Parts: sequence; structure tokens; C-alpha cells
Amino acid sequence: MSANPSFDILGELLPIKGVSLGVAEAGIRQSNHKDLLLIALDENIRIEVVFTQNKFCAAPVIISKEHIIKRNKGGSPVASKIDFIRALIINTGSANAGTGEKGIKDTRLVCAELARLLKCDVSQILPFSTGVIMEPLPVEKIIQSLPIVVANLSPDNWYSAAETILTTDIVPKAVSKKILLGDSVITITGIAKGSGMIRPNMATMLSYLATDAAISQALLRKMINNVVDNSFNRITVDGDTSTNDSFVLIATGRADNQEILDDTSIEYIELQNAITEVAVHLAKGIVKDGEGATKFITIRVEGGKDMDECTRVAYAIAHSPLVKTAFFASDPNLGRIIAAIGNAEIQDLNVYDLQFYLDDLLVFENGRVSENYSEKDGSNVMNKPEITIRVLFKRGESSTTVWTCDLSYDYIKINSDYRS
Amino acid sequence: MSANPSFDILGELLPIKGVSLGVAEAGIRQSNHKDLLLIALDENIRIEVVFTQNKFCAAPVIISKEHIIKRNKGGSPVASKIDFIRALIINTGSANAGTGEKGIKDTRLVCAELARLLKCDVSQILPFSTGVIMEPLPVEKIIQSLPIVVANLSPDNWYSAAETILTTDIVPKAVSKKILLGDSVITITGIAKGSGMIRPNMATMLSYLATDAAISQALLRKMINNVVDNSFNRITVDGDTSTNDSFVLIATGRADNQEILDDTSIEYIELQNAITEVAVHLAKGIVKDGEGATKFITIRVEGGKDMDECTRVAYAIAHSPLVKTAFFASDPNLGRIIAAIGNAEIQDLNVYDLQFYLDDLLVFENGRVSENYSEKDGSNVMNKPEITIRVLFKRGESSTTVWTCDLSYDYIKINSDYRS
Repeated sequence: MSANPSFDILGELLPIKGVSLGVAEAGIRQSNHKDLLLIALDENIRIEVVFTQNKFCAAPVIISKEHIIKRNKGGSPVASKIDFIRALIINTGSANAGTGEKGIKDTRLVCAELARLLKCDVSQILPFSTGVIMEPLPVEKIIQSLPIVVANLSPDNWYSAAETILTTDIVPKAVSKKILLGDSVITITGIAKGSGMIRPNMATMLSYLATDAAISQALLRKMINNVVDNSFNRITVDGDTSTNDSFVLIATGRADNQEILDDTSIEYIELQNAITEVAVHLAKGIVKDGEGATKFITIRVEGGKDMDECTRVAYAIAHSPLVKTAFFASDPNLGRIIAAIGNAEIQDLNVYDLQFYLDDLLVFENGRVSENYSEKDGSNVMNKPEITIRVLFKRGESSTTVWTCDLSYDYIKINSDYRS
Repeated sequence: MSANPSFDILGELLPIKGVSLGVAEAGIRQSNHKDLLLIALDENIRIEVVFTQNKFCAAPVIISKEHIIKRNKGGSPVASKIDFIRALIINTGSANAGTGEKGIKDTRLVCAELARLLKCDVSQILPFSTGVIMEPLPVEKIIQSLPIVVANLSPDNWYSAAETILTTDIVPKAVSKKILLGDSVITITGIAKGSGMIRPNMATMLSYLATDAAISQALLRKMINNVVDNSFNRITVDGDTSTNDSFVLIATGRADNQEILDDTSIEYIELQNAITEVAVHLAKGIVKDGEGATKFITIRVEGGKDMDECTRVAYAIAHSPLVKTAFFASDPNLGRIIAAIGNAEIQDLNVYDLQFYLDDLLVFENGRVSENYSEKDGSNVMNKPEITIRVLFKRGESSTTVWTCDLSYDYIKINSDYRS
């Protein structure tokens, strides 16, 4: 995807000028466990956020939206200092969702205290929470730990930040990438968390990406939607969309590139490609670290009439518990994929007019199992840790890709035990 | 539901005049296992069928639909002997779905041979299959066993028939009911199978109900749709709709009631209520016997604007793997129900304007956990084998009920091992 093949995804995490991060053990749900993250931004930094579409959006989502509306002059020619967001405060352990007016009030208290410490307006702070739903936020523990996260602020804390936002995920998900825009070196660094309740609808659980590129607010907004549609909105673990999903894209403008103002420019396209690549890497990381996941499954649907039907077919396969358990067992009981396709509510589907492949193995055509298919070959593919299901229609030019994982005993174990 | 409380669901299975059943061990997938069922009908018996809406409907579904179209004069004033269905032939082990033209041909061979044995037209036979998808039908084994099922025909074989159609289900699902229509005693007997791939859309996996009541073809058609909507279309195990779902309603007219011709008559309503009661009993039986099920969960949504939104909310809860695993664990992690409601795509939902209960325990109101709720009380309800989740909106007069089960280790085990 990158137009800069020499600058690939990096193992080391790079700081982004203008962004510093601090973490603390606030003891929100467990002791001896990092659970509070502050992302502090220097002055005049542009930010865009995409939130969950779950109607029970959490208190921090409501407050963050409110603060963004108040600050919406950020980046306009007449913006003043106060029109820019200065801090993101993120806690794990409690989602502060389904907590009513008290939840709203609790989040306001945290924001107010942080504004006092950072000497900014309360509306310059965006709060985020992740964890158990319908339990109260332990406000006092968080407020007591705010001076600690402030004291801990450093541009080099990205990995520690990625560890801090984990809940049931095991592996910190963090990545950096460098590209050249003209003569300017641009850096992108991102982190994400999420493992269950993953069917993002406009965003993943929580993910924070920052770049030092200079770009206008309008184009940053345009870019974030495009990036989310091609990364976090393409993954699913269990089909559940959380109450707290948020994806944040920060552009500090501290690099020396000329501010990007044209969405047809090569600079816009290259930056968008690079940020999408980082986002896809993090999104795939969430699926690979999906609750109980033992297989990483790419579902590719091609030749559909439109994106909508491609997406319906891809998710019908991705959400079928029977398909997911067959992959867990490496059992090529592939009729389950047929049944899932048939359930995708495509009214005029001709079942004789589609093929499906497992990796390069043709499994199904002409309304039945392919003549050259053997169950042994099917088993060989199913045994791999990463598998692509490719469905080929002859209905049109649209295609899509969705990433998911299998459904294992451990998914049940993790979700039976999560709170205990 | 019954207007005849003195005639409740019966433990013993009653024969229906005009219907006889024969079973055999054809060795389709396993040996020493009943897997072939013939339901033979006397002359001039009315029948209606509702089939799966899965686009990959199985070869027997295609052929059955074709035969019904050919016979559609059945019951009309000018109907001849040949306009009535005479036999249903049902095999387990192979679904004969995703088998292309060969699957169609295989089913035609079975029907032709059975027509020869029964001395009827081939189009008077309705074939049904259930089992593994995308594997060929073992036609020879079935044809060799057809004389055995014919020889085995008896009006008293309902229980044996219920055993024969099982696949991954453990418990035969069969029930009878008697009611009085005026002075006439009417009998209804039904069987069903289904355990996984259960989210019926117009029907369950397979179910056959027969009554001796006399009713016009038009009203039988009207009745079957109403019965299905209020029974098999209200259950879900894993959200997957099978390629072979079929629900058959037979009215032999051998009782001495006057033929029902008016859908506003008390006789029509009482018969429909009684048949619905039998169908609900069988549908609930499928959920209770759901793959790996340890809990039976009733989801009741009340006060919705319309049925559609009530149904969306009910299924969003019923299909959430996180809700289902919480019930398996008896863990009152009930925020997951809130998240599921929030995902049901009700655009103008006011989260402060709904309540939800577990049985009689108020869990959630005013956008947050209820003040009198305690986790101990929640645990007490969650530990029961049968639980009702009741969601109360204040949006309108519509309501619906959906029945489902939890998601356990055994669901994974059964579906990882099914074919082996």
C-alpha cells in the first residue's frame, strides 16, 4: 500500500514532536497494573476523533463530543489558543457506560481536576474509558493519580501507553512508520487496544494515532473517515460493538512539510496511505489478539454489485459461529461458508455463479464442491495460522476485505471469567 | 394460550388419522442409527410447507417447492386424486445442499423410486434432508432402505420418527395436544429437530405437525404463516439459518368437525392457538436442546414503536456472544445487555427511557443500574436454569418474545467435532 517501500512498518516506536505520554497505576480495578494514561498535546495541534455508534455511548464519549463541539474552531484562521485540545485522559477497568447522570458528573470531575493541573480550559480535555460496563468510575482513585501521570509525561512513553490501555488483550499493539513527503520526513506512531466486543462501527475499541505532518483541519477530518473505513471498520471478533469505541488521529504539524491543503495532492494521498497502513496494522493486531483467537482469517469478497453486498457477505461469514468453530477445529466443514453466504440476504443471488477459495484452493463452483477439491487439501489450508477465504461473484466490480478470527474454548473462558 | 385449558400438552404421542410413519437405518452417515423417515398420507389430505429463506436452499427444498407448485390444486373444488401430496421422505446425515445439479438429480432418483413403491406420481412426494452441507447424498443406501420404511409404516411411530430426524440434538422433540372444537375432539401431534445453525427465518430446521381437523386449504396456508411467526421464527441458538429449514403442517380432515372456512370463527382461532402452542413447545424444545445449552433464556421486549424494532433489540441481545457467555458463567455482567441494546440500530433511542429486568429483578433504569439492584440478587437469578430478560421501552405498544440459550464450551466442542 505504501508508496514509500523503503520506509516500512518499524519495530521501534518513534516519538511524535508535540505529543507526550504519562502512565500510572491508579488501582481502578486491579492493583499493580497500569490503568491510567495521559496523552498531552502542545499548543495548536489538530485532532479528529471518530466515536462508537452504539446508542449507549459511554459518559466519556458524550463529554468528549461536547468538548470537541466547543473547540471546533481549532485550526480555523481565527482560532485562539483555547480552541485546541490539550490532553486526552484514558482509563481502563471501568467503561463508565450505562452509568447515567452520575457517570457524566464523574467524568466532568476528572476533566476539571486535570484542567487545573495542566492550566488549560476543561473543554480542552478529551476523556476516554474502557472496561466493565454499568459499573461506577472510581473517581477518587483517578484524581489521586492525575499528578503521577502528569509527572510521568515523556515523548518516549508510547510502548508504556500501549500496555496501559490493555484490558483482556494480551499483546500491546503499537507501531511506527516513517515516510518522505517531498523532502520532509514524516513520522506516524499509533497504539490500539481491543480484543472482545469487537465489531467496530466507525472505530475500534480505542486507538490513538499521531503524526507530525502539517495538514489542514478539513483534510484531517476527511482523512480520518477514510482511514477508519479501510482499517478498524473492516475487523470483527464477535460482532459486538462496544459503548466506548474511539479512534483518535492527531496531526501536530511539527514536521517541516508544507501544510497539506489539497486532497488530490500526492502528499495527501501518500500520507493517507501511510496512516491507513499503520491503522490496518493495529486493526489486524486486535484481531490476532482477539479473545481466544488461534487463527487469523482474511475474508475477501470480489465481483459484487456494490460495497454493501460485499460487506454483508463478508460479515455473514465472519460472524457465523459455525464457520468460526470449524476454523478453530481446522475441520474443512466448508458447507458452513455456503450457508453463511446464503444468509447474507442477497435477493437475486445465483448460487451457480460464484466460486470460493481457501487461499489458492478452489473449493466451490457451479453450485457444488469443485471437482479437483479434496478434503485433504482443505485440511492442509485449514491447519495454517493465517487463512484467506475468497468469494468471487460475477455480479459487478465491487470488492471488500474483512479480517476476523476463529471461535475457541478460550473465548468462552475469557468471557465467563472476565470480571472475576 | 389455549382456550381449552382442560386439554393441555400431553406426554403421550397420539396418532393422527390419515398419517402413518416408517423409519429405517439406512447407514447414511453412521451405522446402527435411524436416519430415514417416511411420513405417508392417505388420499385427499391438505398440507402446507414453509421453507428456509437461505439462498443456498438445498436440493430437496428446490424439489419440494417444485412438487408443491405442480400439486397446487390440492383442496380446490376441481382437485383430483393426484393433486394431493402422499408422502414426505426425510433423511439425516447429508443436507444435500451446495451439491449443484447432481444434488437435484439425486433427490429426483429417491422420489422416483419411492413413487414407484407407493404407486403415486413422483410429484406427490416431498423430500427433506438434514445434515452436513456440501457432501453428496448417498442415493443407493437410501433407495435400498425405501422398502424398509414402507414396510415399517404405522400411525403409532411418531416417537420413533422424532428420534430418526435428530442430528446433533440429544432429546427427541415430540408432543401431542387435544382440543374440543364445538363437539368435535381434534388431535394435534408434532415433531421437530434442530440444535445448531438455528436462527429460523420462516421455519425451524425440520418440523412436522399434523392435525385431523378439517380446514380449507386457504385457511391452512394463512394459519401456517401465523404459527411459524409466533413459534419457530422466535427462536435462535447461534444466529445461523440453515439451508434446509422446513416446517410442515398437515390437516387430514379425518376428524368430524365441520370444515373451517372462516378465519374469524372461534373454531379457526382455537385451532390456531392449539397448533401454535404445540409449535412453541417444539421450538422451545429446540432451544433447550441447543448445542451446548445450559440455560434457557426468554427475551421479552415491550413498549416498542413497532414489531421490527422490538425484534431487532431482542435478537441483538440473543445473538451477542458476550451476553450468552455471561449467562453460561452465571455472571451478572449485565452491562453487556446494555451494549447489545445500544447496537440494535434504533436511531432515536433515549437511554434514560428504558428499563430492563432479569425475571422480576429491576436491573437498569434512568440510564444506570437501578438503586435497589445488588449483584447478589443478580447472581441469584443468573444461576437459574430458565431466565427471562425483560426490556421495557416507553415508545409504543408493540412487543415481542424471542427464546434463546447460552454459549458454552460444549457449543465449541460439538461444532469442532460434528463431522468426526
